[in-house]
Amino acid sequence: MPETTDISNTQATLSSISESLSAGAFVRVRKLLHDIAAGDVALLLESSPTKTRDILWQMLDADFHGDVLEELSEDVRNGIIGKMIPSRVVDALEDMDTDDLAETLSSLPENVLNNILATMDAQDRLRAEKAMSYGEDTAGFIMNTDTITLRREVTVDVVIRYLRLKAELPENTDTLYVVNRHDFLIGTLSLSRLLTSSPDVNVEDIMDDEPEALTVNMEEREVASMFERYDWLSAPVVDEDGKLVGRITIDDVVDIIREDAEHSMMSMAGLEDEEDTFAPVGQSTKRRSVWLGVNLVTALLAAAVSDMFEETLSQLAVLAILNTIVPSMGGVAGNQTLTLVIRGMAVGHVTDANALWLVRKELAIGFFNGIIWAVLIASVIALWKQDYMLGCVIAFAMMINMIAAGLAGATLPIIMKKMKIDPALAGSVILTTITDVVGIFAFLGTATLFLM
Amino acid sequence: MPETTDISNTQATLSSISESLSAGAFVRVRKLLHDIAAGDVALLLESSPTKTRDILWQMLDADFHGDVLEELSEDVRNGIIGKMIPSRVVDALEDMDTDDLAETLSSLPENVLNNILATMDAQDRLRAEKAMSYGEDTAGFIMNTDTITLRREVTVDVVIRYLRLKAELPENTDTLYVVNRHDFLIGTLSLSRLLTSSPDVNVEDIMDDEPEALTVNMEEREVASMFERYDWLSAPVVDEDGKLVGRITIDDVVDIIREDAEHSMMSMAGLEDEEDTFAPVGQSTKRRSVWLGVNLVTALLAAAVSDMFEETLSQLAVLAILNTIVPSMGGVAGNQTLTLVIRGMAVGHVTDANALWLVRKELAIGFFNGIIWAVLIASVIALWKQDYMLGCVIAFAMMINMIAAGLAGATLPIIMKKMKIDPALAGSVILTTITDVVGIFAFLGTATLFLM
Repeated sequence: MPETTDISNTQATLSSISESLSAGAFVRVRKLLHDIAAGDVALLLESSPTKTRDILWQMLDADFHGDVLEELSEDVRNGIIGKMIPSRVVDALEDMDTDDLAETLSSLPENVLNNILATMDAQDRLRAEKAMSYGEDTAGFIMNTDTITLRREVTVDVVIRYLRLKAELPENTDTLYVVNRHDFLIGTLSLSRLLTSSPDVNVEDIMDDEPEALTVNMEEREVASMFERYDWLSAPVVDEDGKLVGRITIDDVVDIIREDAEHSMMSMAGLEDEEDTFAPVGQSTKRRSVWLGVNLVTALLAAAVSDMFEETLSQLAVLAILNTIVPSMGGVAGNQTLTLVIRGMAVGHVTDANALWLVRKELAIGFFNGIIWAVLIASVIALWKQDYMLGCVIAFAMMINMIAAGLAGATLPIIMKKMKIDPALAGSVILTTITDVVGIFAFLGTATLFLM
Repeated sequence: MPETTDISNTQATLSSISESLSAGAFVRVRKLLHDIAAGDVALLLESSPTKTRDILWQMLDADFHGDVLEELSEDVRNGIIGKMIPSRVVDALEDMDTDDLAETLSSLPENVLNNILATMDAQDRLRAEKAMSYGEDTAGFIMNTDTITLRREVTVDVVIRYLRLKAELPENTDTLYVVNRHDFLIGTLSLSRLLTSSPDVNVEDIMDDEPEALTVNMEEREVASMFERYDWLSAPVVDEDGKLVGRITIDDVVDIIREDAEHSMMSMAGLEDEEDTFAPVGQSTKRRSVWLGVNLVTALLAAAVSDMFEETLSQLAVLAILNTIVPSMGGVAGNQTLTLVIRGMAVGHVTDANALWLVRKELAIGFFNGIIWAVLIASVIALWKQDYMLGCVIAFAMMINMIAAGLAGATLPIIMKKMKIDPALAGSVILTTITDVVGIFAFLGTATLFLM
């Protein structure tokens, strides 16, 4: 029977590690740690408070350090590397693939990185500098350089004998690359095509001679989008001249897809993408304070708008009670639109060609939302406060704010993107400021005109 | 030179399709449509308003319908299928892999599905029913059944000759499966291992005889998490007895990973996961109204809390002006914690073992946030309104609400998960209700006690 890997089994092992750790059964923890995959050890470290994390790391055999570091998220990895002796880090980096090496090194704080580079011997340092030579977030940065290349005029039989001599292929190899004598990529040949072809045909007769290649400078987000769209498992990477320089495999792209999708969610709540859930209290408090500070300013701004109507508020306390309803509804409606547009831009649905159509659509939704919720709130208030005029005032403010919400929610991310500002990062706070200010102004302003 | 697929090229083609369409150059549109990959046509359809989408679909050759349907998101796909003649749909479904067939059919509204099933011949219907026989969101549902199986005692040479006879392997095949005569999975053999082994060794000598297999009933989210953690490209699927029933390839898992990561973001804004950005206004308005309705109730609840302090508010209009600051800060701080915990649960970092630690940590952050922002707001208000006592009152309320925000943000998703409620869906609205009510109550309550 196959070993059916059940996630509850892994969970069971992880819990039993936690239990053994609290019980002080370190020998058992050590044994269990070396029984599970590097990805599982990484999960365990990421799920542990910093102190436990340090203890676990110390128990891990140095031979596994590299494998586990590769699998860790940035924040957690940097925390661990920061506490290691540089020479140990150098040992751990030795067996890493180029892409993992580049990612690990380039995310480190400058002083730590320099310490590590200084500890390396000349050859390792050269390799490290080469890995980091491509701009972060480009195809060159995430590619591996371990490609297997063939010449077009050899036969399938020769290729198979050549591969047998190699004894092992690089991890996740599914395609071989055909190059000319200047290393230009002229074709690709999948292992499955190779295996199903007759031994005496030439590579050029069975290769795909219009290979789709990525260029080294392509942004990783575009790379990910293409892998998703074309269901690739791997793709060759060429330089500006068309020379083969590496390959990207989908397991690295999966990380980008997850990070990219999580980025918007985390940013919209004012968190950093890879914020370590189990970071120390001080670090977390500091990181989150930026966002709270921005919010305090906008909350004071909204209060300043109310302050303009102090006279009205002091005479009609009921306005103070109802003052939060219209801004709140506008905030929710605007955030719905904003989220939809930000996600649409991230997956490439929203383009210059259809942006105007989308703004008009969201404006129309804002208009209909305005009608629906204006009628509803007017009825509720008229019944609750027995004041029809007050109902009309709040209905009018709701109408105005819902339209403002739709307009702001749709245009903000489009404008911000044009200005090269990440809409996920600041869009939500600007939007809420707009819906708060417009909502309060419309409600208290109309009330001052008609109820005073 | 290889054809370096540049995303801007694809974008250019897509824009030129849009332009030709508006210019009425239908022949050109038709030609361009058939020059690009199915994934690109899908992107174009998803980026178009419903009317344009319908026109484009009509221009597409029926032969491509199946390929494009596979790549579309649920909402858009259902919209298109709903308008097609059932017999056309049946034709389009004919060449689909089992996993795509299962997904396409099971997401259709019941009446459309029944129409389509009724149009199928007996054999197709059997295939469709088999594909849908596994629970949605399970490994069985997303697997393909086109595995290539071997027996352990044959030699590499025999395997290669067998593959040559087949002439073509199923898409994305990277591993062959070794089964015994009862179809039980006993090993796996990667194509790269096969190619690098000597022709006269037996499969059993080079296969991985401890294959890690998924079971048909495993949840797709767990499947995705394992692919991510172990960097798999494909994995075999077995039934409860260990019999091989199919395989899952990473290109299908990529979709799950993206949907899973987007799910939290969309849900937190009160949107459906695959909401079509370009859906008609009426449909969008209707879908978003649920969330706005819930928010109206909570906004009225907050107003009712303020209403309890009408007397205080009517005497001190300044309280009405400042009444929104404390709830707003609590809402932001609470949502930061909530988002972090929801994401932590989604990626498997937050477990029973560390939940308590996490709640304590967020409570501590709430406490420190409370101190920081209490001091700040007290200073601002004391300066602005020249009233030290008012500064102390708002500081105290801020302190209370920040602690409540940390506590609610951390415990809510953990409790909701235990109750099998999706925290992304309702967590944010419950949290905001708590921080609004606590914030208003603490501020106006303290003010009533000390300022009246």
